[in-house]
Amino acid sequence: MDGQQVDADLDLYTLRPVGRVRSSLTRRDDCPRQGSEGAPEAWVEVDAAFADALDGLAAGGEVILLTWLHAARRDVLKVHPRRDPGNALRGVFTTRSPDRPNPVGLHRVDVLEIDARGRLRVRPLEALDGTPVIDIKPVFRESLDA
Amino acid sequence: MDGQQVDADLDLYTLRPVGRVRSSLTRRDDCPRQGSEGAPEAWVEVDAAFADALDGLAAGGEVILLTWLHAARRDVLKVHPRRDPGNALRGVFTTRSPDRPNPVGLHRVDVLEIDARGRLRVRPLEALDGTPVIDIKPVFRESLDA
Repeated sequence: MDGQQVDADLDLYTLRPVGRVRSSLTRRDDCPRQGSEGAPEAWVEVDAAFADALDGLAAGGEVILLTWLHAARRDVLKVHPRRDPGNALRGVFTTRSPDRPNPVGLHRVDVLEIDARGRLRVRPLEALDGTPVIDIKPVFRESLDA
Repeated sequence: MDGQQVDADLDLYTLRPVGRVRSSLTRRDDCPRQGSEGAPEAWVEVDAAFADALDGLAAGGEVILLTWLHAARRDVLKVHPRRDPGNALRGVFTTRSPDRPNPVGLHRVDVLEIDARGRLRVRPLEALDGTPVIDIKPVFRESLDA
């Protein structure tokens, strides 16, 4: 691990959660495999320390949420897609399995509401309650829609 | 970086680079703001320790590369979009600025070639030479194309 300091006492490769998901999903087995498969609305609570980074964000648009799938295994390199043993094993980089070397979740969501406390109501989000949020990005055609 | 580090040794929020970008881009000022703005082809060298995670990946498709923008500042919450002082300050979560609390880069790229050493030739990629790669994900309509 590189001991270089980046900001305050952060190590180079250390993530800093900027918020948390608040969701009715409390068990991994309850989570849809994809947001489009019945994932519920959820709230994204952004820590006050990062509120300025939301400046200019408006309800009614879409964003890409990056989460840290803290319940995932990081030592898994191949999985049966959709956890179906009938599916041949494939490398996790060809799947959206939460189990992967760096379990970053990528979620395109609609921003339905931004409340007075700066919380974002979004949907659909297939992440467990309490999942750390590590970044929020705009949806740019050139980056994601080709 | 240590691709062989065992899962148990990892702190919860510590990223483990799975590879590196090899690019002609060696200065941040040379990097296009978006991949679509003249970014070159680049090679993604995946560490041998993670080669199994590529199983099933084929040239000719698209993937989402997640990188760790190691040259970025992590203490910046607002920026002038496109680094133009004429643009009003906006929260970094509404921009693709590399300067953000967790500088994860998101890049949708074409996989042009996978060579015998498991390196991926991709384009376009607006990341500096040496940028750590932290994840590779498939492009799923439900996750990214709406």
